[in-house]
Amino acid sequence: MAVQTVASTGNTTVDLGPAAALSCRECGHRVPLGPVFACEECFGPLEIAYDFSSYDTEELRKRIEAGPANIWRYAPLLPVPADVADKPNLNPGWTKLVKADNLARTLGVTGGLYVKDDSGNPTHSFKDRVVAQALEAARAFGFTTLSCSSTGNLAGAVGAAAARAGLRSCVFIPHDLEQGKVVMAAVYGGELVGIEGNYDDVNRFCSELIGDPAGEGWGFVNVNLRPYYAEGSKTLAYEICEQLGWRLPDQIVVPIASGSQLTKIDKGLQELIKLGLVEDRPYKIFGAQAEGCSPVSVAFKAGHDVVRPQKPNTIAKSLAIGNPADGPYVLDIARRTGGAVEDVTDEQVVDAIKILARTEGIFAETAGGVTVGVTKKLIENGVLDPTKTTVVLNTGDGLKTLDAVAGTGLTATIRPNLDSFREAGLAS
Amino acid sequence: MAVQTVASTGNTTVDLGPAAALSCRECGHRVPLGPVFACEECFGPLEIAYDFSSYDTEELRKRIEAGPANIWRYAPLLPVPADVADKPNLNPGWTKLVKADNLARTLGVTGGLYVKDDSGNPTHSFKDRVVAQALEAARAFGFTTLSCSSTGNLAGAVGAAAARAGLRSCVFIPHDLEQGKVVMAAVYGGELVGIEGNYDDVNRFCSELIGDPAGEGWGFVNVNLRPYYAEGSKTLAYEICEQLGWRLPDQIVVPIASGSQLTKIDKGLQELIKLGLVEDRPYKIFGAQAEGCSPVSVAFKAGHDVVRPQKPNTIAKSLAIGNPADGPYVLDIARRTGGAVEDVTDEQVVDAIKILARTEGIFAETAGGVTVGVTKKLIENGVLDPTKTTVVLNTGDGLKTLDAVAGTGLTATIRPNLDSFREAGLAS
Repeated sequence: MAVQTVASTGNTTVDLGPAAALSCRECGHRVPLGPVFACEECFGPLEIAYDFSSYDTEELRKRIEAGPANIWRYAPLLPVPADVADKPNLNPGWTKLVKADNLARTLGVTGGLYVKDDSGNPTHSFKDRVVAQALEAARAFGFTTLSCSSTGNLAGAVGAAAARAGLRSCVFIPHDLEQGKVVMAAVYGGELVGIEGNYDDVNRFCSELIGDPAGEGWGFVNVNLRPYYAEGSKTLAYEICEQLGWRLPDQIVVPIASGSQLTKIDKGLQELIKLGLVEDRPYKIFGAQAEGCSPVSVAFKAGHDVVRPQKPNTIAKSLAIGNPADGPYVLDIARRTGGAVEDVTDEQVVDAIKILARTEGIFAETAGGVTVGVTKKLIENGVLDPTKTTVVLNTGDGLKTLDAVAGTGLTATIRPNLDSFREAGLAS
Repeated sequence: MAVQTVASTGNTTVDLGPAAALSCRECGHRVPLGPVFACEECFGPLEIAYDFSSYDTEELRKRIEAGPANIWRYAPLLPVPADVADKPNLNPGWTKLVKADNLARTLGVTGGLYVKDDSGNPTHSFKDRVVAQALEAARAFGFTTLSCSSTGNLAGAVGAAAARAGLRSCVFIPHDLEQGKVVMAAVYGGELVGIEGNYDDVNRFCSELIGDPAGEGWGFVNVNLRPYYAEGSKTLAYEICEQLGWRLPDQIVVPIASGSQLTKIDKGLQELIKLGLVEDRPYKIFGAQAEGCSPVSVAFKAGHDVVRPQKPNTIAKSLAIGNPADGPYVLDIARRTGGAVEDVTDEQVVDAIKILARTEGIFAETAGGVTVGVTKKLIENGVLDPTKTTVVLNTGDGLKTLDAVAGTGLTATIRPNLDSFREAGLAS
């Protein structure tokens, strides 16, 4: 992947609020804020370093609570300018934290079970959170085209955000993607480019484009804007704690694709502790994968520090990253917090989607089936403590993965008369 | 349709908050609260009569503003018990009122244009609002089965609400409905009964069931619970005004299916005026239909008071009611407020869906295409004043009517290299 260095693209005058610099997660090397994602010293991933030193805990809490009902209530903790809420934006976040008492009974949880339901976001997945951050970075760096490679949720999130922001968008997808997914990405009217090749070819091409003059002015949300983009997942941690009454959950179950979301949720929780917004108590983070793409789960169970890539084969396509960039960090966090990483079969994913829908009226994407299914398995295996407060993430919407539950259907067929109704045993 | 009288089913001890009685919209005859929907005197429709006499304006405003971020902030104005927010419920509402500046520029609106985006509800349509009211009434009357006939949004809303509330649900649909719609309704796990016949047969059967002992304990959300159910649409009016800073919009464009939603939005606005929560100023309500099902629009333009039924033929299936029960009331309101009723072709509906997606990143159901398309037409015809504050309703989600925009697709197909990219003219 072509690596742009700060020297060629850096901009030290950008206003991204409390974001002070980019810092290498491996060697700690700091560089000014810019559209770069890899350390020039060690090629480690760059992430945002903040200056929160001026914040008073109670003032900050009041400021957040008085903020808008979306992620911008946390603007003081994000790499965005202070006036971000005034700019055209999809304003995602502040999704429901559903107290899932029926699901708790079904799974045997007695300590309080919650579903953080990100299907309530504008394009119905958590991707709206991260794209919203990337959009602000794109504005700050003067990019005029918002771009990504995608086969699903990200395409819609980028297309919609760019449309509202008045930026050009250009989304790259494999040319033979299913028509339904093409429509969902195309409706927002940006460029939608089919690449003759598979998803790996698409990604390779995008990396090539970033390093070429032809890609000048292009912000790839999850490549050259990745350090900013990734921070959006912190808002899940902030919201969960605030919605619990400024309290850490005891246990949290997070899906793993690249692993970025899980690491940023941990980062968000650590920030809240350091800022004094929540009491410092132990919490455990659990990672959830589908068996057909379980490189992190396999490594966790084998006690390895290295994640061996897999060729994905699962219905949970939004999690199907065979070589997850943040896999090693996920292993660290799961082990440090006393959590675990587990996987479930596609059949268990489908069962879990149905369990969640039937107990709580929440129709989750396959990724939500993965987290609920893993939660069930972890309880059955005695790994997750059912007497503790537990939060399960649903990151997407069932309407986008209808095929997964295509087997569900009519429970009865009758003629339009009462005799036929009674014969079917439907009277209460 | 079988009519249950209050004498046989009435219950004068139910607690539905400020709801005092049922009152006939035609003759004013009042009966106690009960699962009835037609006047025993004149067969006119019953609606809820409230006792708001004890409310102090500023206390009420504060109470609302301190309430939850869902429809229950308006519990003091709805037929629900005061503790409704504590019961298992999907908690719909408080959806985004999007300031649609890009759409405004496209349509030439200078006075402020807003989209009230109800695709943000739990099952992604405004039906969650009305079903939530029906659920409370079902609880109050001791019903154990929540039911409806539907071919779309309502089925999912009822299935999901009942699942979360722990009630049985039984939804009746034509047996040959498209598989995708069956899946969306079936996933919540209630009874989903296919009726051998068309939608009219389904409705006839449901009416028969309500009048029969076999239907005892059954709450049909839009039949015997209809007076309660319908009140849910008032929350759209409340939210719009509160989100505008406790101010009436000048103009509001509402889709028409049965016409109930439009009449209840008017009722909600009138209540806010009477309670002193907004300043009493003129407002205009516009109704929107698809040409293929435009009985109210046809009557409005012809100057008739009577609505002549049509056989629907439009892609806007969620609005395809050929004999709208509240049609005459809609005509009254449009004429009284100085509004209008207009219709657009299916082609204009599709265009409007694309315009909204491309300007604001909001992917609407066909019903949203109808309201945006009608808004455009009314501005072009000089009927809607572009210098006034205008609110357009989007009542559903584009993911549920993907077929409508199936024609959208790739803007280019290229090989995975930079030469092919440049040849396609994609460089910025």
